[in-house]
Amino acid sequence: MRENKLRTIWKQGGCVVNGWLAVPSSFCAEVMAHTGWDSLCIDIQHGMVDFQTAISMMQAISTTSVTPIVRVPWNEPGIIMKCLDAGAYGVICPMINTRADAERLVGTCRYPPAGFRSCGPTRAALYGGSDYQAKANETVVAFAMIETAEALANVDSILSTPGLDAIFIGPNDLAISMGLANSLDPTESKVVAAIEQILAACKRHGVKAGVHTGSAANAKAMIAKGFDFVTILSEARILAQAATALVADVKAAAAAAVAK
Amino acid sequence: MRENKLRTIWKQGGCVVNGWLAVPSSFCAEVMAHTGWDSLCIDIQHGMVDFQTAISMMQAISTTSVTPIVRVPWNEPGIIMKCLDAGAYGVICPMINTRADAERLVGTCRYPPAGFRSCGPTRAALYGGSDYQAKANETVVAFAMIETAEALANVDSILSTPGLDAIFIGPNDLAISMGLANSLDPTESKVVAAIEQILAACKRHGVKAGVHTGSAANAKAMIAKGFDFVTILSEARILAQAATALVADVKAAAAAAVAK
Amino acid sequence: MRENKLRTIWKQGGCVVNGWLAVPSSFCAEVMAHTGWDSLCIDIQHGMVDFQTAISMMQAISTTSVTPIVRVPWNEPGIIMKCLDAGAYGVICPMINTRADAERLVGTCRYPPAGFRSCGPTRAALYGGSDYQAKANETVVAFAMIETAEALANVDSILSTPGLDAIFIGPNDLAISMGLANSLDPTESKVVAAIEQILAACKRHGVKAGVHTGSAANAKAMIAKGFDFVTILSEARILAQAATALVADVKAAAAAAVAK
Amino acid sequence: MRENKLRTIWKQGGCVVNGWLAVPSSFCAEVMAHTGWDSLCIDIQHGMVDFQTAISMMQAISTTSVTPIVRVPWNEPGIIMKCLDAGAYGVICPMINTRADAERLVGTCRYPPAGFRSCGPTRAALYGGSDYQAKANETVVAFAMIETAEALANVDSILSTPGLDAIFIGPNDLAISMGLANSLDPTESKVVAAIEQILAACKRHGVKAGVHTGSAANAKAMIAKGFDFVTILSEARILAQAATALVADVKAAAAAAVAK
Amino acid sequence: MRENKLRTIWKQGGCVVNGWLAVPSSFCAEVMAHTGWDSLCIDIQHGMVDFQTAISMMQAISTTSVTPIVRVPWNEPGIIMKCLDAGAYGVICPMINTRADAERLVGTCRYPPAGFRSCGPTRAALYGGSDYQAKANETVVAFAMIETAEALANVDSILSTPGLDAIFIGPNDLAISMGLANSLDPTESKVVAAIEQILAACKRHGVKAGVHTGSAANAKAMIAKGFDFVTILSEARILAQAATALVADVKAAAAAAVAK
Amino acid sequence: MRENKLRTIWKQGGCVVNGWLAVPSSFCAEVMAHTGWDSLCIDIQHGMVDFQTAISMMQAISTTSVTPIVRVPWNEPGIIMKCLDAGAYGVICPMINTRADAERLVGTCRYPPAGFRSCGPTRAALYGGSDYQAKANETVVAFAMIETAEALANVDSILSTPGLDAIFIGPNDLAISMGLANSLDPTESKVVAAIEQILAACKRHGVKAGVHTGSAANAKAMIAKGFDFVTILSEARILAQAATALVADVKAAAAAAVAK
Repeated sequence: MRENKLRTIWKQGGCVVNGWLAVPSSFCAEVMAHTGWDSLCIDIQHGMVDFQTAISMMQAISTTSVTPIVRVPWNEPGIIMKCLDAGAYGVICPMINTRADAERLVGTCRYPPAGFRSCGPTRAALYGGSDYQAKANETVVAFAMIETAEALANVDSILSTPGLDAIFIGPNDLAISMGLANSLDPTESKVVAAIEQILAACKRHGVKAGVHTGSAANAKAMIAKGFDFVTILSEARILAQAATALVADVKAAAAAAVAK
Repeated sequence: MRENKLRTIWKQGGCVVNGWLAVPSSFCAEVMAHTGWDSLCIDIQHGMVDFQTAISMMQAISTTSVTPIVRVPWNEPGIIMKCLDAGAYGVICPMINTRADAERLVGTCRYPPAGFRSCGPTRAALYGGSDYQAKANETVVAFAMIETAEALANVDSILSTPGLDAIFIGPNDLAISMGLANSLDPTESKVVAAIEQILAACKRHGVKAGVHTGSAANAKAMIAKGFDFVTILSEARILAQAATALVADVKAAAAAAVAK
Repeated sequence: MRENKLRTIWKQGGCVVNGWLAVPSSFCAEVMAHTGWDSLCIDIQHGMVDFQTAISMMQAISTTSVTPIVRVPWNEPGIIMKCLDAGAYGVICPMINTRADAERLVGTCRYPPAGFRSCGPTRAALYGGSDYQAKANETVVAFAMIETAEALANVDSILSTPGLDAIFIGPNDLAISMGLANSLDPTESKVVAAIEQILAACKRHGVKAGVHTGSAANAKAMIAKGFDFVTILSEARILAQAATALVADVKAAAAAAVAK
Repeated sequence: MRENKLRTIWKQGGCVVNGWLAVPSSFCAEVMAHTGWDSLCIDIQHGMVDFQTAISMMQAISTTSVTPIVRVPWNEPGIIMKCLDAGAYGVICPMINTRADAERLVGTCRYPPAGFRSCGPTRAALYGGSDYQAKANETVVAFAMIETAEALANVDSILSTPGLDAIFIGPNDLAISMGLANSLDPTESKVVAAIEQILAACKRHGVKAGVHTGSAANAKAMIAKGFDFVTILSEARILAQAATALVADVKAAAAAAVAK
Repeated sequence: MRENKLRTIWKQGGCVVNGWLAVPSSFCAEVMAHTGWDSLCIDIQHGMVDFQTAISMMQAISTTSVTPIVRVPWNEPGIIMKCLDAGAYGVICPMINTRADAERLVGTCRYPPAGFRSCGPTRAALYGGSDYQAKANETVVAFAMIETAEALANVDSILSTPGLDAIFIGPNDLAISMGLANSLDPTESKVVAAIEQILAACKRHGVKAGVHTGSAANAKAMIAKGFDFVTILSEARILAQAATALVADVKAAAAAAVAK
Repeated sequence: MRENKLRTIWKQGGCVVNGWLAVPSSFCAEVMAHTGWDSLCIDIQHGMVDFQTAISMMQAISTTSVTPIVRVPWNEPGIIMKCLDAGAYGVICPMINTRADAERLVGTCRYPPAGFRSCGPTRAALYGGSDYQAKANETVVAFAMIETAEALANVDSILSTPGLDAIFIGPNDLAISMGLANSLDPTESKVVAAIEQILAACKRHGVKAGVHTGSAANAKAMIAKGFDFVTILSEARILAQAATALVADVKAAAAAAVAK
């Protein structure tokens, strides 16, 4: 079966540098797949992307060695299993607040007896190989998002869920649920402390720790802290930031030229 | 009729700062439309975009005050008129090498008696307003691409075509047709000289001069030279450059963390 | 933040005249957006529309000042939050039969502490403005559909749900659940009485009352009764009625011409 | 081979009542196919429709007995043959101004020896039947649009083109090319006279005469004059007219209610 | 109302031969609809198909007399009702493990008082006819998938659910849930026995029995056993098998030619 | 630059076994790409495929080592260059009847000075590599279709066109243009002789010879004759043949079961 780069990198003690896709376009995904990310996550929750488009984006990513994963809209078996059948090698599931949530997520991602995933890896077997069915349970990564005060309170029971590979911190939602302003690069001490608390729990439970960041600087800081998986912005926001800066620069020159 | 920002800016003596769209996505176009460009050109020639998708991108651009234009794949009436009917306020046509090419382009973009455009502004009248039919000829901008040695030789006869509003220089094709290496920021003296020769001819004929550039620095240099319309890269290349730099930065940190 | 016309009209004591979209086409939506409606609802429940298409329809509506809302297929957080992130300024949710249903709906539509909506207004922030996150809770309108005998029995407990802005009566389902024939312009006394009972409850609880109608005549009657939000047919049915009448008229003439 | 209703009706001496599709949606096409038209024309010229979408619209029409035809963007073999391969039973081609234009159109629509259509009726053979290849030449209808002063001057040479089945008058373009204001229901005496002149020429040459109209009243008048094929507006315009009237009616009531 | 071929064939004591669609393409569906199947099931669970595409596939199937059904991703009212509104004449629902699951499925598929399906057969009424609403409950077929050890244990309580028309055995999932290797043509005695046990229960309860098979040979064996509904592979797998065999044959010849 | 398998196989003296894609689906293309073909041709002429869909199909093919090529609808620079920019490694162009046609085709496929292809390999550079621009002229294969009596008469002048890599015989069109019945496995002696005449001319001019066939048997016969490139049917026809046979087999058993 084709390797899951996440597991390969983790075995080597490394941190996965993951890109984020909110634009519903297979060509945009292919452009991103040529810029160096280890993995790319198609965001079917907050991204402007639905399942049909996500398939084409997974195909685009599969033209390279980058590993495709998805963030699903909610902890619902229908959409999670569809994404896995389409070839996602990882699932990031939002709003895992309790042990029961985590168990349901893990069960959805695993074939029996480890779970209740239904058999039919229609594209996954093309992508992964003919031994997909046999090796999927040990290959696919299930990420629980820890992003509420409730999840924080339940972090140990969540992290001890059998089969849970990793967690992913959503700093925006975490801050909001704590009554604070949202930021992908949080500086509020309570949010910073919560993130550290979750990271420490991950280390304790042998669960990989991931986090969404808003800048290279913060991503590097998170790597230094020991995170195993960092995401930086999304392609839409990287583009928006770069284009805004570029246009402002050129328009200032255009304005100056008119003024002359 | 809704204004064409190109004409408004030109009346004020300014230079249009134009963005370029190669990604077939209305959401990506909408993101770009919020980053400050005066106009956005949907590239149906070299972009990964077809007419059906271009309509949705024009709709996305129309959620803002940015002016939508298109580059068509070739000097063919079918596709040019379709784009105008969908609401494009400008048409950039590649490979205009002769006076006859230019006349055909202008005729395609104008209703009789100025040309032979067929009547049916299905979306254009929603976008432009109920007086679209009456005012389209004076609103829509026709750009001839000057991008071959042949066009350079014919520049005066092309530029004197009645009704030709503007030209757009494609530095890549111009260089290649001269037997030189392509670049959006050319430094080859023969290419630089050719661009200046075209610009001078534009000033002589009262035709607006546009050019594709590969960086803010070059765009600013072109504005300083007197160009009326500058394009910088495409959204795909802006994204690729920004993401590549960002990933390289973070992966270096990740590698260093493993090495420790 | 861009205004929500529903709230503006309601502040002025007016009734919102809302159109209904069942055709999965951004161009059709744009045509409708130019015909005078205050708001347009994309029907992702009974319409032939899925999320990916709904985004493009919201973009089309956003080329005008008409307010975009959606009817979701079911009271499920995944799809409701996706629609909000795409820029819907209102959510109509079917089959709210109990207080618990209503609370779940309201919670899904609100950021903490008012609810549990997840943060990521990817397109909504482009549409609404950079203060979207701060003002979304007071801008977005949550409509509970009251359309079963069970909901009728629970109307007071549903209407007293904190944060529930409005309800929307589905006369077809309401009639069917009462064992009567469905109609958007009901004349059955039990259905008429139920609608009046719901309207009275709305006035009592300070909740806005909406209703789906099948004709201008009935819409006007509902406005006269005090409804705050009326929908008339769908674009598919308006088209079908108008085309059927037009064709019948012309074909009668064609038949007469042959007979001669 | 499945019948072409146009030919059936014409054999019976009747006039075809044809609907017009500018909305790129197979569902909208299916709605229209249930409203009584004899045939439906997908407008790939001025409609917001491209080939890929047109296929799905032809499929939708094919769920009924309505005959699908297309208007192509220009007299180009590529797109015309693609539409025929997808199952179009008629082709309306714009801007046929000369005998050479008409010959090229007819040749494109016919297999050798009558023309140079390339063999590959991929969907047409599913739609038409296994004898499609043998009977296509006698089944498919080629319409030349007569819509310029030049075409008017050449009307006899155009109409005598062997194999040309029918013409279709575009009153808008015809008027504009004569220097007059466009209208689908022309009252300008020069346009009216031109239309009558073309009709008379059709009768003389045994070519079927079609015309685009803007209302049932005018369509009926054209039938009375002897036209064989009438089109009324498009689905987009029928919808826009009906919705505008309906909204205006209801909003007047809403305004009156507020004023009280 | 248009007939449901499943019910017609069952009334005649026959077995439905059903095709399976995993390719998201209306043209591919139309090709399949011309190859002789009684019905075609669009697989929205394991197929690469989402609702928007499924509509176009149902349209394609509706160009023929083949009956369209769907397999939904999960037992969720939102997607099931959407598929019915789009014209599906049958619903196959995965993972029905308990009586409560079965009751929820049946309720979702039936209008009151038999269930809680919401009224709005937007395309279904075009496909089925104007009496759709009245006759849908007796026309639409609800299939519960029996595909786990748990379902096997509960088979009698599931099969006695009022209104449950049929079941569909998923041999792959059934085998996996029993700790055995998956196969569409199972030979493991425990799986074979389980299938026979389910079939016997169906006969006992008067519920139609369906099964997915991996070959014509097994399909014929299942018919001989008394199954009422057999599916063979999917169009993707039929194509893959046929193309693989064909290419291997030709490439062997090509290799031999080089060797010479 | 990524290799073009066609050139690699030809250098080894082998024959390319090419598959044909008429279904507009990236997933169907991916299924085909896993069945062993050396290359896959997306048929934008007679296939139900347009440019936008063709891009996604090229992406799907690019997930494997199969080489993607396209058949374009007509000898028009617009669409040919778009396909090359999207990553097609070969272009099959229909109806090349004269030396001038062939020169235009070759010129369209080559950058200056060998031709007039415009520079902008937007996806091609992702697929081919960063040296695409430098090596495209020697990598991309241009196929002229020889498929009319006129082309047969001009075969030597066509085949001596500088830069023409290969030809592709369309037996259907060739037969029709000779006044004979069409077949992909022709037995008419005049067609057989014409094919041999073209093959001999190819050998004489050092141009690679390709042919479309309707069966493995004929493909093998053509390889034995010395063809360098064989195509067998299309995926739509392989599927239709296989499914028709399978259904007929099973339905016979179903009918027999009822009869009992």
